[in-house]
This record gives sequence, C-alpha cells and structure tokens, in this order.
Amino acid sequence: MATVRLEIEYDGTGFKGWAAQAGLRTVQGELEASLATVLREPVRLVVAGRTDAGVHATGQVASFETSAEMPRDLARRVNGLGPRDIAVTAARVAKDGFDARGDALSRTYRYRLLTRFASSPFEEKRSLWWPHRTDQDALKAAATAVIGKHDFTAFTPTQTDHVHFNRIVYGAEWAQDGDILSFRITADAFMRSMVRVLVGTILEVGTGRRAPESLDRLLKGAPRSEAGETAPPHGLYLESVSYD
Amino acid sequence: MATVRLEIEYDGTGFKGWAAQAGLRTVQGELEASLATVLREPVRLVVAGRTDAGVHATGQVASFETSAEMPRDLARRVNGLGPRDIAVTAARVAKDGFDARGDALSRTYRYRLLTRFASSPFEEKRSLWWPHRTDQDALKAAATAVIGKHDFTAFTPTQTDHVHFNRIVYGAEWAQDGDILSFRITADAFMRSMVRVLVGTILEVGTGRRAPESLDRLLKGAPRSEAGETAPPHGLYLESVSYD
Repeated sequence: MATVRLEIEYDGTGFKGWAAQAGLRTVQGELEASLATVLREPVRLVVAGRTDAGVHATGQVASFETSAEMPRDLARRVNGLGPRDIAVTAARVAKDGFDARGDALSRTYRYRLLTRFASSPFEEKRSLWWPHRTDQDALKAAATAVIGKHDFTAFTPTQTDHVHFNRIVYGAEWAQDGDILSFRITADAFMRSMVRVLVGTILEVGTGRRAPESLDRLLKGAPRSEAGETAPPHGLYLESVSYD
Repeated sequence: MATVRLEIEYDGTGFKGWAAQAGLRTVQGELEASLATVLREPVRLVVAGRTDAGVHATGQVASFETSAEMPRDLARRVNGLGPRDIAVTAARVAKDGFDARGDALSRTYRYRLLTRFASSPFEEKRSLWWPHRTDQDALKAAATAVIGKHDFTAFTPTQTDHVHFNRIVYGAEWAQDGDILSFRITADAFMRSMVRVLVGTILEVGTGRRAPESLDRLLKGAPRSEAGETAPPHGLYLESVSYD
C-alpha cells in the first residue's frame, strides 16, 4: 500500500462541484475515473477542500491509498486521459497515512472581482464583474474584523451538516492589482459557502448598504438571515492548503 | 460628422477573425451591429490590426465616422448589447479624420506559451501549451536577429494580398513570467500570419530543429517554404497600437 498526494487545478465552470454525485459531472468523479484507468483499481480520493459547483481551484490537494504500483508519470498519464478543465500538477508518494483533509492545517481561498466599468472577455466565469463604487478602506476594516476565532453560523446555509461553527481565521485581506480586486482568506477550515457569504456581506459594507458595526454581531453566532448575500461561485478559487 | 475612436478587447476563440464576412461570426460584424443599434445608423469600422480567426486582442483600436450624436456612455451601451466575448474598454471622439489603421505608427503583439509539464484549465485557448525543452538563449538571440528592417516574405502565406514585404521591427523579445513564456514584438505593421510564422520558426531554433543562422536568409526575402510552421492562433494577442 502506498499513500499518494495530488495537487490539482480545475476550472469549476463545467462541474457540479468537487464531490462525486451519481449522474453529475464532478471533479472527484472525473479524477477517480482517470486514476482507476491508469492504476487498474478503484480509487477513492480524500480532498482538502470540497468546493461547490462553479468554484475553481489552483491549489487543491487530494490523497488516496493504492495497492497498485505508483507509476512515475502518474500526473502526465491522468492528465492525458482526463478532461482539459482539470490538471494534476503534481503527484507523489506521501508518508504512510497522509490524509489531505485531516492533516491540513489551513486552507487559503481567493475571491476575485473585476472592478473596471467594462466586463472582460478574458474574465468571464473567472471573476465577479464589480463595476460599483466601493470603499476600499471599509473593505479592509471588515477583513481585519474577520481575523480571529469566531462563530461563523451566520456565514453558512441554515440547512447544514456542520456540527461546530467556530473557525479560526488566520488572515484576511483585500488587494487591488490593476483591475482585479482580490479577497484572500486563510482559516483552519471553512464551512460550506463561508467565503462567498463573507464576500457578499463585506461588499455590502463596502458599498454602504450595511453598517460596519453589524459585523461584530454576525461573528458571534447570529443567524444566517442577518448576513449578506452569497457572492456567486465563479469568483472563488481554492488557492492553497498548508500542511506540517 | 464626428470621428470616434474605440479601444477593444476580445477573446478570439469564438470568432472567424476581425474582418466582417457574410454568414460568419466576426468581431467587426458583431461590433458594427451593436454600434448601428445604439447610433441608429450604419457604422463602418476601420481597424488597426486585422486579426485572424482565434487570435485575441487586449488593445485593439478601431475608428469610424458618424453623423449621429455621440452618446457619452457609448462603450457601456455597446457592451450591454454585444456579446460577452467582446468589450469596448474606451470610446471617445477623436480629432477629425482620425484613421485607426492609417495613423497607427506601430502595433505590438504578444504570443503566450505555457511551459510547464501539465496543461492548465485556465490557459485553454489562451496560450500555446509548450512542455518542450527549449533553449531560451537561442530564442532570445533569434528575437534580436528579427529587429530592424527586413523582407518578411518568408513569414506570410504565399497566396497574399500584400504588395510590399518589408517591415520594420522596432522590438522583439522573450520573457518568462512564472509558467508563461511570452514573445512580444513591435513593428510598423505586420503581414498576415507574420507573428505566428515568426514564433513557429523561432521555436524550431529554440528546440534545436533549425540552425540559428538560417534566420538571416529568411529575413532577406526567402520563400515561405523555407520558414517554419505557423504557430496556432490561440496564443496570440494584439496588445497595443501606438499613435502620434
């Protein structure tokens, strides 16, 4: 038996998210099928971040156990078989028992907005077009408020599988680079839709539709109904996962 | 009468090039239709660089004459009507008689290659996937050789509408930025496919399939058959056009 670690990129546009679901096109489903063909045995992937439909990844990490011999060019062979909207950028034998989900110390997501007046042919489904006047100081103050250990109940759907709602945000910041405004956030773990509800809520602060002070209450376990809209998935990227 | 200057971006993937052709989807055709709707009169665009099918633009320039009143929000209205793979990023009244083609002093094109071993979901149709060992010094020497006034007959199809084959290349260079290797070239004007044949030929030098010295002869009016392959269109971008 060997434990294998994969680094993966995907354009989420064409997928119903990461997690395999019968009859739906998912990243896990496509990758497991390619891996099974190359390794000639069924493969079950464990993933660091279960992204939703339409969400992208530039630094997803997954792991699996295999009794097959690990071919040296596994990534190349999987990429050759698989669809063009997924790329395995690294594949290597990890230490026994490596668990991409359980061993992850933190995940970093990035949300991209295009802030110019015209939308871009090259940013379609890659960023949220946001031609609205936005107070960047307010965005930055809101990001700073999010850092720390909080109860993020307000930032995940009411119908949820989550049991614990406290998460520790290690870093959260906004940065403008040309026409792209990015929100980057690192936490020990994220709940479903959490980054997107945070972005939707903070943008309401930035456009003056929500009082900055309301964030304090939201971060203390307020109900979902008090937070803002869920930003659309196509601006969101799982950027990296850190391990020991 | 007013002369209007437009700056335009497009993802060339879905177009049969710039130039209007009956029954085909072209950038000119789409833009002229949107402009005619907004201005309520037929519009005929003059363009700085007639790009081929699949070629992109991030800094195309076009001009037209109109007797209609120029609305202040022309770009916004045209973008609202037009398809998402074209964006007018600026529209303004230019000095009388401004001619986007005739007045252009130079054009700059960029050719993008993705040089890592794995293709990228985000670079599909945006760059040429080039996972081949390539001698960057050889690429750079070849680019330098191209600078100056030369007879580029070898770098355009044999069947041609061009009458003069001398062009002046003001600058040509390769640069690596992360996994993206770019060739950027500025000339007074370009012939059809010229950048793509240059890239295809220089890449042959970089991979050792062509002697560097052969370039000298190619730049002195050798026939098309002596130059290299035409690099595919999806790596090419019209980046900017300069005027007085």
